[in-house]
Amino acid sequence: MVAPLSGLMPIAGIHSVRAVLRHGETSVDEVWLDRRRRDRRLGELAEMARGAGVRLRQVEAEEIERAAPGLNHQGALAWASAPASRGEPDLDAILDGLSGPPFLLVLDEVQDPHNLGACLRTADAAGIQAVIAPRDNAVGLTPAVCKVASGAAETMPYVQVTNLARTLDALKGRGIWLIGLAGEAEADLYGIDLTGPIALVLGGEGRGLRRLTRERCDYLARLPMLGTVESLNVSVATGICLYEALRQRGGR
Amino acid sequence: MVAPLSGLMPIAGIHSVRAVLRHGETSVDEVWLDRRRRDRRLGELAEMARGAGVRLRQVEAEEIERAAPGLNHQGALAWASAPASRGEPDLDAILDGLSGPPFLLVLDEVQDPHNLGACLRTADAAGIQAVIAPRDNAVGLTPAVCKVASGAAETMPYVQVTNLARTLDALKGRGIWLIGLAGEAEADLYGIDLTGPIALVLGGEGRGLRRLTRERCDYLARLPMLGTVESLNVSVATGICLYEALRQRGGR
Repeated sequence: MVAPLSGLMPIAGIHSVRAVLRHGETSVDEVWLDRRRRDRRLGELAEMARGAGVRLRQVEAEEIERAAPGLNHQGALAWASAPASRGEPDLDAILDGLSGPPFLLVLDEVQDPHNLGACLRTADAAGIQAVIAPRDNAVGLTPAVCKVASGAAETMPYVQVTNLARTLDALKGRGIWLIGLAGEAEADLYGIDLTGPIALVLGGEGRGLRRLTRERCDYLARLPMLGTVESLNVSVATGICLYEALRQRGGR
Repeated sequence: MVAPLSGLMPIAGIHSVRAVLRHGETSVDEVWLDRRRRDRRLGELAEMARGAGVRLRQVEAEEIERAAPGLNHQGALAWASAPASRGEPDLDAILDGLSGPPFLLVLDEVQDPHNLGACLRTADAAGIQAVIAPRDNAVGLTPAVCKVASGAAETMPYVQVTNLARTLDALKGRGIWLIGLAGEAEADLYGIDLTGPIALVLGGEGRGLRRLTRERCDYLARLPMLGTVESLNVSVATGICLYEALRQRGGR
């Protein structure tokens, strides 16, 4: 019988544990594996944990379930230091340190953990350098977000700022073009130049961009909507926008 | 005090109730609105229901919650005939009736209701004509799927077939090219011609395409993955693929 580790965040699921072992070794304190489950991938996780010098425990499935209620753990759990969201000084440091043109994602009040997790995962895959969100009315790096992000919460800087409008002004001051996605926009995303220094700006679930956010965008664009639904899920829309930008930027 | 309507499916949330009233009038039996909530959009739903000849009830929030536990209802609930998934004969009828080139989505064992709902919503927006899935090991049109689909479950044909491999052969027999998404593919999605008669084929969560599915694909393609995560969420990957096809097809 083992006790959940206080002050640490449980990361559940084979993919997620593998990702955190591969990319965030120092932050993992302990890995728990279901002692009764026969799965080649659990054996691989055990080897990775040993290789990274992380303590390994073979436990009962019920112990994993109690530590990570409601998460689909697949017999694997890592105890890690929760990644912290960053603030304005970190954003400046990230932007100052870039060697290529900025390619950023701004999420205006995304509140659903699944959506933020999927956005972080996609941002990582598309080569985004930082994801920016307001500190208020936006979900932070909760365990559910980290699980859905499949490791990206540990690698993708998630910057929460006090005043998003002021941060957008600062980005413009750095020569970064702000391209907002808005269903009522006249321009089509595919007609907009997404190469060069840009930040793609998407609104939260069902509400879209706030007025102060929208007013700061250099361009507003929409995605074609050929059917009956009025909008797309924000994480799906984010994926479409980031990958269209990636295609134009030749990053494939 | 009102009783949940047996044999009917509760559809919760302002967007979803609006969509089902707009596009599936005949299937809605009754609409419940939270009598205490002050929201312009609820008033609009009441007008839509009256205009469609649908019975309207002003109820307590608790009654909506009891009828649709765990759903984010926003004070609005519609009782509708559950849309049924279709079978092989329906697929033939859909394909026989097309005036333009087929543009289909195949989901190989997607099991998460949120993912299927988001895929149906995106398929509707991208102009897909039918979504095809196996009958076994795939989620059907559950209330959670319909809620996430935001109305698309009522408008987008969801065809569940007994033998997916046989259906894929039949599609090939009709001259439809099968393009499968696979992380290990050598070709890049952006290098493949997605105009003409095609079906995009995506695998379920974390497992990808099954062997029998993969072997039937005319092309396998991958999305660029520039970061540390190994894959994208299936509904995000579906959105990226469908919209790249839409871009190539000039449907914007």
